[in-house]
Amino acid sequence: MKRSLTGIRASGELHIGNYLGTIREGLKLQEEYECLYFIADMHSLTTNKDPEALKKQSLDIVASWIALGLDTSKHLLYRQSDLPMVTEFAWYLSCVTGMGYLQKAHSYKDAVAKSKEVNHGVFAYPVLMAADILMYEPDVVPVGKDQKQHVEMARNMAGSFNTVYGEDLLKLPAPLINEDVMVIPGLDGQKMSKSYNNVIPLFSTEKHLRKKIMSITTDSTDMEAPKELKGSLIGDLYPHFASPSDVQTLSDKLAAGGYGWGHAKQDLFEAMNEHLKEARERYFELREDENKLNSILFEGKEKAWAIAAPILSAVRKAQGFL
Amino acid sequence: MKRSLTGIRASGELHIGNYLGTIREGLKLQEEYECLYFIADMHSLTTNKDPEALKKQSLDIVASWIALGLDTSKHLLYRQSDLPMVTEFAWYLSCVTGMGYLQKAHSYKDAVAKSKEVNHGVFAYPVLMAADILMYEPDVVPVGKDQKQHVEMARNMAGSFNTVYGEDLLKLPAPLINEDVMVIPGLDGQKMSKSYNNVIPLFSTEKHLRKKIMSITTDSTDMEAPKELKGSLIGDLYPHFASPSDVQTLSDKLAAGGYGWGHAKQDLFEAMNEHLKEARERYFELREDENKLNSILFEGKEKAWAIAAPILSAVRKAQGFL
Repeated sequence: MKRSLTGIRASGELHIGNYLGTIREGLKLQEEYECLYFIADMHSLTTNKDPEALKKQSLDIVASWIALGLDTSKHLLYRQSDLPMVTEFAWYLSCVTGMGYLQKAHSYKDAVAKSKEVNHGVFAYPVLMAADILMYEPDVVPVGKDQKQHVEMARNMAGSFNTVYGEDLLKLPAPLINEDVMVIPGLDGQKMSKSYNNVIPLFSTEKHLRKKIMSITTDSTDMEAPKELKGSLIGDLYPHFASPSDVQTLSDKLAAGGYGWGHAKQDLFEAMNEHLKEARERYFELREDENKLNSILFEGKEKAWAIAAPILSAVRKAQGFL
Repeated sequence: MKRSLTGIRASGELHIGNYLGTIREGLKLQEEYECLYFIADMHSLTTNKDPEALKKQSLDIVASWIALGLDTSKHLLYRQSDLPMVTEFAWYLSCVTGMGYLQKAHSYKDAVAKSKEVNHGVFAYPVLMAADILMYEPDVVPVGKDQKQHVEMARNMAGSFNTVYGEDLLKLPAPLINEDVMVIPGLDGQKMSKSYNNVIPLFSTEKHLRKKIMSITTDSTDMEAPKELKGSLIGDLYPHFASPSDVQTLSDKLAAGGYGWGHAKQDLFEAMNEHLKEARERYFELREDENKLNSILFEGKEKAWAIAAPILSAVRKAQGFL
């Protein structure tokens, strides 16, 4: 069975953008692949310096994936910081990776554009990410179109390493890009992102979810006037949670006039709530049981190490270390 | 007892410059300090990609230090790659270290000046070096004047880390600069360095040592003419191996005329040979016994880990990792 690897950064509450962009796509692979999912909590340190938040968020993520259907009897869920030897691998890759090449990373260029002072973790990020990938030899890494570069960089670093230390030492992963997955807009129409403060949380109370959805930006067309679902934010989000015939129904109602954006938001809320309801219940139940979450992580760590150990060992040996 | 830490890069044969600049000074500290000495073989990867050379050089270094008087019953000698969790610590430091700050490192600037393509290991070098230091809480780090910056950088990174995660978490080391230690010139008068191909090897045969010393650059003053020892390369090297009265004698002979540079070189050879003879014998004997060298490294690793483990553990905990 081929292997896939999905990482998710531990920073802030999970939101609908994470769910539609990463989690739902990641979970769909469970039939066809041996799936590895990991919580990138060491990556989070580049921006998150709050130890309590970091601990909490890791457990939130575990509970979320399990609640949404991750089957840990067949697949792996582990926390990056439980296998910290990935940083050792990153050092080895650093020594075969040119500075000029790293300076081209989008993530670094974006960070520099936003802030004058960027820490070295942000710059070294693609190297650690490459180590995260290469240490587990996945066949594929599912990514959004905007993250394709990370997998390309991992492939190139693996190629450089193999050129120096021996062909076939590191396996080159392929990006798995689902062209259907669009950028998920947030409340204001920009990409849904914690940094834009425009997210719809994945698991919160019904009341809070409804309130958030009601705050989605829509145009100020009069309630009586006919409206177009397509091109609106509701139109971007609704199809992810409703059937094609429900989407058609809403589209028809809006086009007919006399149906306001407030009504459409209510429809979106109901569809989303229905879609997430059971998982949310499981989530809150699981989240109470931290012992269980920790034992899931422990099991994940053991299984992940069984995969990584021989790879790291071969890498060490190739370089002259015992 | 205060603790000192000395690192030596595993790359190429040890030479007289290493001996006078690092090893002899490092060994002098054995009375006053608990001394940690480590072989920086993971650092070597930035330039050395030959696994067999790396393995061999680590053992050469172990044999050299022991032959020259390192007492492993009281002090520690370990290999960096035997405690690879130092790279984990380096990642943590990376996340509190600004890119602008790292760009000011002399080692990086020198590398860029020499070569267009520099790898990320060279750039990240001061971070790994800071981790090498901070993970063992030394009071002092003996360095040459030209390496003072590395210790300053380690201090600054420790300071930044403590500011974020809690004062007194990391101990700030002090540089220990011996003002008497000059830059040791090589055969051609430039700093003795493998990269200038001008080294006098520390342990080679008498014949080879003599040949090297005879190739030292001197001026072409006639043998009969009076000469000044001071200011010549012989004059720079001889006092490290001869007594003050022997230095005066040579100086007088040269000043009187009728004593050539060839004679002075012979004097230097004899003094150096006398100084290194016994250690060289011990070196060649030890170097034959790789089991012994490996068991010294194993013991060093165990002792080093006993120091590092609680420090790394506190650092992990402070950041929210278990």
